[in-house]
Amino acid sequence: VIDELVALLGERAVSTSESVLDQHANDPSHHPPHAPDVVVYPESTAEVARVLSWANERGVPVVPFGAGTSLEGHVIPTHGGISLDLSRMDRVLDVRAADLQAVVQPGVLRSALNAAAGGHGLWFPVDPGADASLGGMAATNAGGTTTVRYGGMRTNTLALEVVLADGTVLRTGSRTVKTSAGFDLRGLFVGSEGTLGVITELTLRLWGIPEHAVAARAAFPSLEAACRTAAAIVGAGIAATRIELLDAFTVRAVNAYKGTTYDEAPTLFLEFGGSEVGVAGDVEAAAELARWEGCEEFQYERETEARARLWEARHHVLFALVHGSPGKLHKSTDVCVPISELAAAVAHARDSADAAGLASSIIAHAGDGNYHVLFMLDPDDREELEAADRLNAEIVEWALARGGTCTGEHGIGLGKLGYLEREHGDLVPYLREVKRVFDPNGILNPGKTVPLDTANTVRLS
Amino acid sequence: VIDELVALLGERAVSTSESVLDQHANDPSHHPPHAPDVVVYPESTAEVARVLSWANERGVPVVPFGAGTSLEGHVIPTHGGISLDLSRMDRVLDVRAADLQAVVQPGVLRSALNAAAGGHGLWFPVDPGADASLGGMAATNAGGTTTVRYGGMRTNTLALEVVLADGTVLRTGSRTVKTSAGFDLRGLFVGSEGTLGVITELTLRLWGIPEHAVAARAAFPSLEAACRTAAAIVGAGIAATRIELLDAFTVRAVNAYKGTTYDEAPTLFLEFGGSEVGVAGDVEAAAELARWEGCEEFQYERETEARARLWEARHHVLFALVHGSPGKLHKSTDVCVPISELAAAVAHARDSADAAGLASSIIAHAGDGNYHVLFMLDPDDREELEAADRLNAEIVEWALARGGTCTGEHGIGLGKLGYLEREHGDLVPYLREVKRVFDPNGILNPGKTVPLDTANTVRLS
Repeated sequence: VIDELVALLGERAVSTSESVLDQHANDPSHHPPHAPDVVVYPESTAEVARVLSWANERGVPVVPFGAGTSLEGHVIPTHGGISLDLSRMDRVLDVRAADLQAVVQPGVLRSALNAAAGGHGLWFPVDPGADASLGGMAATNAGGTTTVRYGGMRTNTLALEVVLADGTVLRTGSRTVKTSAGFDLRGLFVGSEGTLGVITELTLRLWGIPEHAVAARAAFPSLEAACRTAAAIVGAGIAATRIELLDAFTVRAVNAYKGTTYDEAPTLFLEFGGSEVGVAGDVEAAAELARWEGCEEFQYERETEARARLWEARHHVLFALVHGSPGKLHKSTDVCVPISELAAAVAHARDSADAAGLASSIIAHAGDGNYHVLFMLDPDDREELEAADRLNAEIVEWALARGGTCTGEHGIGLGKLGYLEREHGDLVPYLREVKRVFDPNGILNPGKTVPLDTANTVRLS
Repeated sequence: VIDELVALLGERAVSTSESVLDQHANDPSHHPPHAPDVVVYPESTAEVARVLSWANERGVPVVPFGAGTSLEGHVIPTHGGISLDLSRMDRVLDVRAADLQAVVQPGVLRSALNAAAGGHGLWFPVDPGADASLGGMAATNAGGTTTVRYGGMRTNTLALEVVLADGTVLRTGSRTVKTSAGFDLRGLFVGSEGTLGVITELTLRLWGIPEHAVAARAAFPSLEAACRTAAAIVGAGIAATRIELLDAFTVRAVNAYKGTTYDEAPTLFLEFGGSEVGVAGDVEAAAELARWEGCEEFQYERETEARARLWEARHHVLFALVHGSPGKLHKSTDVCVPISELAAAVAHARDSADAAGLASSIIAHAGDGNYHVLFMLDPDDREELEAADRLNAEIVEWALARGGTCTGEHGIGLGKLGYLEREHGDLVPYLREVKRVFDPNGILNPGKTVPLDTANTVRLS
């Protein structure tokens, strides 16, 4: 089998070395690792098509792999087979500054796209934290800190080239900002988590870098007050670029890790961007709403360096938590609720975690109503692991009962399959049928995103 | 058959009167009318399900009908059968002001939603011109004058209840602004033009009414200069609410119809909204860009009444043209190009129409790169009709060669089926398969959106 792949793509493109297999066996999540049988590194759409067509004929599972930073087990080859590593397809093919667009290969990291766009005064704002690959970000419909203003990957992906399981290459979407030409297959492939096709080229929206930006930090007497302030800012139509919530536990971990001296209270990290007068107006309006909720100090950071420090602190939350809990596993919830429910949702999560005696951190993309409870768990403490699972389930149920969703941005992968049935059980049979249209043999990332049924079980390699 | 429908829904819900059939035989487009066999008026999701399940068993075509304002023949029952008129499902079910959301039935007109939202300081910005029904707007992924700022229907639709051909009721999407729970069936139903299911409930995004708004009118020495200004405004990240282009021919028609005295030159109609200082900055920046392109006068309209007059003039363009060409048919192109191509695209369209000797008006949602060439045609002049068809084809080909799409917002319906094959021929077999997942008997709006293949021909009633 390996010989056939080498014959298809050449020696350089195929690896079965132990360390390479290990690198492709897991993601940063708590899901148990499982190694692929082989890792294949295509360098072109034609090579992707050749591998898929070969695998499709043989019923060999194929799991697309970008930067490996997703959090629900998407890239873990639970059925073995091929891990299709797209990191060598890493060219920014075009920056069309006048159209506010870039065309990239799937292995381009978002830092690389931003480096290419920056020279034109443009940026690609979607920011899931990790320096993820853009193909992976589209495949998981990634969001993050800037979604409140710029939308997530579905909003920012204009067109996709996709290779189907049988090697057919499709081009969906358009270079235009609007199109009504047929069903939106582009939007269907965004968020399909490698189960419908392999993304081989993306046309993405770019945005002008705001001429002026201000970051701010606002500490509150309670989590609820911070959440209500976030909701009020969104409701007032203030164009905040970021509205991030950290609970006191998290701020404490950040201070310990980064040496900062932020107030150890529930805190909003905010950013505003636009013209100087526009931003000044936005900041003043947001500060007023914060004061109304008991914020005593609205701390501005106007200098580029101070702003960078603030957002670095936010981005390093996970490292800070891991650092504070050596040897522990981390696990994150990802529910999203209508913003009017956020204060109650976060309070419920905090109280439930406290009642269960679980150390946990709460962070939220508060402007979106999307929050994460991060548990630091002892991998040998079965009771603690089970308590975290129960708590996750309780948090999801609470959210679903109030119009929420089990995943705001991490996706279904392996970890949310049961919750997908709970949230959209009526849709599951149709999701299966849609998958069958594009991947009739079920070779693409089997067992992820869409719960398997018996008729859809793949042959294992 | 009629008796069976009366037995299902009662006498009030079923009509075969000549005048009612005639009302449901056409749309405002040039497509030839075709009457349904019966018009059915359901009043609930359950009634929609009952009709569909009945029709599905018998292979009777069902064509959903909202306000009948779409432009590509979507609502014309070319295969007879049932016109399913949703106008009695016209309740605004909920305005959730704190979540910036409304829940509506499909027959609610956008004016009615705006009346309900306005009391909360909110509005639903999607504005295709006509007072369309929200179900129809979602079904056709409607856009219009405000898409440049707020996006179209796909962006503004959070969740849908949909009834499939066999009567199954699905709920797609979520009340949250973000969800990554499974394939995006919500986005697939938006723009599916009644061919995948019947929308029976929509959860829509609302937006704060800007506290301050300014409209402006800017006349230019050439169409190209006006287009370049629109592109520059978008490129500069100025948050214009509307950037509409009218060519000199159109301004002349508006003046004649409305008694206005606007300069009869290529003109941008613009609107800006936000805080007072923010808008002032946006207007000044836009005016500077316009002056750069030779605009000598940037005419502001700050008063509500003057702004309303300006936008009424824009909205009445079609009436003005029809008024100026009594007894003529009108036909519109709808291509959209990357914005850097707009100036050349519009110039090409103008030159081609002039060369063909066809009276035509050009209007554009210039900030989106979406433009319409409106022909006023003598219905008895076969040569003129054919010249218009040839010109439409030429305009589409020109756009496709430059990364454009054959339809920015009107959709495929009947009128663009051939162009869909031209633009996305690779996708068509998959569009057919996706349709088969949701409508295996092909009863839903047959012959629209997805080119029929022989295997998919429906039984005619």
